[in-house]
Amino acid sequence: MKIDGKPYRSIWLNENGWSLHIFDQRDLPWKLTIVELKSPADCAVAIKEMWTRGAPLLAMTGAYGLAMALRDDASDAGLNAAYDMLVATRPTAVNLKWALDQVRSHVAPLAPEARAAAAYEKVNTLCDEDVETNRAIGETGLQIIRDLHAKSPDEPVNILIHCNPGWLATVDFGTATAPIYRAHDEGIPVHVWVDETRPRNQGALLTAYELQQHGVPHTVIVDNAGGLLMQRGQVQMCIVGVDRVTKNGDACNKVGTYLKALAAADNDVPFYVAMPFTTYDPSTPTGRDVPIEERDATEVTHIDGLDENGEMKRVKLTLSPGGNLAFDITPAKYVTAYVTEQGLFSAADLIERAG
Amino acid sequence: MKIDGKPYRSIWLNENGWSLHIFDQRDLPWKLTIVELKSPADCAVAIKEMWTRGAPLLAMTGAYGLAMALRDDASDAGLNAAYDMLVATRPTAVNLKWALDQVRSHVAPLAPEARAAAAYEKVNTLCDEDVETNRAIGETGLQIIRDLHAKSPDEPVNILIHCNPGWLATVDFGTATAPIYRAHDEGIPVHVWVDETRPRNQGALLTAYELQQHGVPHTVIVDNAGGLLMQRGQVQMCIVGVDRVTKNGDACNKVGTYLKALAAADNDVPFYVAMPFTTYDPSTPTGRDVPIEERDATEVTHIDGLDENGEMKRVKLTLSPGGNLAFDITPAKYVTAYVTEQGLFSAADLIERAG
Repeated sequence: MKIDGKPYRSIWLNENGWSLHIFDQRDLPWKLTIVELKSPADCAVAIKEMWTRGAPLLAMTGAYGLAMALRDDASDAGLNAAYDMLVATRPTAVNLKWALDQVRSHVAPLAPEARAAAAYEKVNTLCDEDVETNRAIGETGLQIIRDLHAKSPDEPVNILIHCNPGWLATVDFGTATAPIYRAHDEGIPVHVWVDETRPRNQGALLTAYELQQHGVPHTVIVDNAGGLLMQRGQVQMCIVGVDRVTKNGDACNKVGTYLKALAAADNDVPFYVAMPFTTYDPSTPTGRDVPIEERDATEVTHIDGLDENGEMKRVKLTLSPGGNLAFDITPAKYVTAYVTEQGLFSAADLIERAG
Repeated sequence: MKIDGKPYRSIWLNENGWSLHIFDQRDLPWKLTIVELKSPADCAVAIKEMWTRGAPLLAMTGAYGLAMALRDDASDAGLNAAYDMLVATRPTAVNLKWALDQVRSHVAPLAPEARAAAAYEKVNTLCDEDVETNRAIGETGLQIIRDLHAKSPDEPVNILIHCNPGWLATVDFGTATAPIYRAHDEGIPVHVWVDETRPRNQGALLTAYELQQHGVPHTVIVDNAGGLLMQRGQVQMCIVGVDRVTKNGDACNKVGTYLKALAAADNDVPFYVAMPFTTYDPSTPTGRDVPIEERDATEVTHIDGLDENGEMKRVKLTLSPGGNLAFDITPAKYVTAYVTEQGLFSAADLIERAG
């Protein structure tokens, strides 16, 4: 997608073919900082210190780190040491482990001297596949937006989005944003209500920045406001990303998603969950079986912003203790459909496919 | 209620009997600033610049301002000029107009030389009545908390609250907080989940401060988190204040209230609306008939907090445009009961009383 009119992916190899470029996303939207990662250690820091984020994107960062390691030491011992170091940067990141596994099992059978090149090739392919998946999610979702537009051709389609299931969290296009970009690029008038997404404000910071840079009309709202907008008929659809969909269709996503799903159901607004099909996890029966990450309370009690001198500043918001559960569960009955690269699924479809 | 162990009301006359003390609430919770208001103009500034806030509290501030005016000029012209000046400080504040009307109609029949003293006496009475009303709301709500405690005597009663329907918004006790303080003072273990209440964060700033100063256990959470806590059985009741209850029982309150009511209904958590009976407005048929105030977008795009030097600082949260609708409507069907100074009412009770 575009920044300052120039198309980017969120991760790309340098012209030298081996070092890596990403954005330092901690600086966004205030400043566009492109950093070069030249070693597995650089990649590990970028993951641990959240320069890079979003499950698919940090998986690719780690996977390129493994390829870099093989340039220096392509022995089995070198491969395994680099794998262990990189997988430990974010132990809960399923995609990261998956991507590292993909690379390791791809290169392990090869002679050491062939491993580095093969690893790069493999990660390049994984990146392209991520882009292709998201493009296909966009195609699936485009039809929904097209239909809504056909119903009320004189008004923009108002879409509510939570958190940053955007291109900055993937290699390109994003998941829940992909249909929005696709519709916008096709000339369908859309307007996006962007939940700020407390406590980490990924909506106000990242989704809003993406939309602004790509030229999509949008308004940042507090997380409290979406219910009212739906009551007033100012939302034609909600679309969110998701961390995990359990066998029965329950969607585990950024905290607050559930409240929007309830409001959507109460106001007959369709509520869509966008995801690559790999996010469907039939091995977990229901949302009740998903452990909820509790994060540092300072994310609630403090906030970062830009002060009047244009400096990033952290301010304290309360003198009281804070609680910070990071995800919630949207029961399947509140999900209108799952928007995937393989098409639109109902919860019943998902269950049937899981067999 | 107590601050630093000392009991306060939110508004009180100086020992001289004519000048007024309030807190500059813009400094809370960071600093306790007691200001003295010595003229109607001082009172007007305190209302307009939000040193004082909360419908009942700012009404009393304005009413004392009218009494002050009569010390200098108690003629009919003086009375009306001061009334006009003060009522214009917050044109949408129904309580302010009501309190000014009370004072004016009380003193207008009197000889000018008797008016100032009578006005002070009247406002003192209005303040005492506000306190008495809230105390009685506390008694009504206490029974609910007592019953919940009896069901699970080994655990604290977890109560979710939104915004600041607290003593800092009234003369004392607050509305939705009154039952909580009453239960706490009676030794019932309570723990309060305080919604931060974006965009103006009255929960994280004021409700949390009140509870902290009075010694009530509490945790500040983002507005997104309450649904998850209810899903997990960590909330035994919700209680909120309200700006207006329409004839059918719809509750117009701070934006985000509706989302919590939906989550409460979805998880069989009782949802209470605390209010003085005067908040019931049978002249407005339903919530759809209540205009929703749209406030300045900078409340969404910027936030105030304390920087590392202990200075209050405003930071910017996004580069995008913001939208800021201040209230939403909780349909009557999601309200378990209305907690008033006259007892507990269902929506059907309210409608029956309205006749």
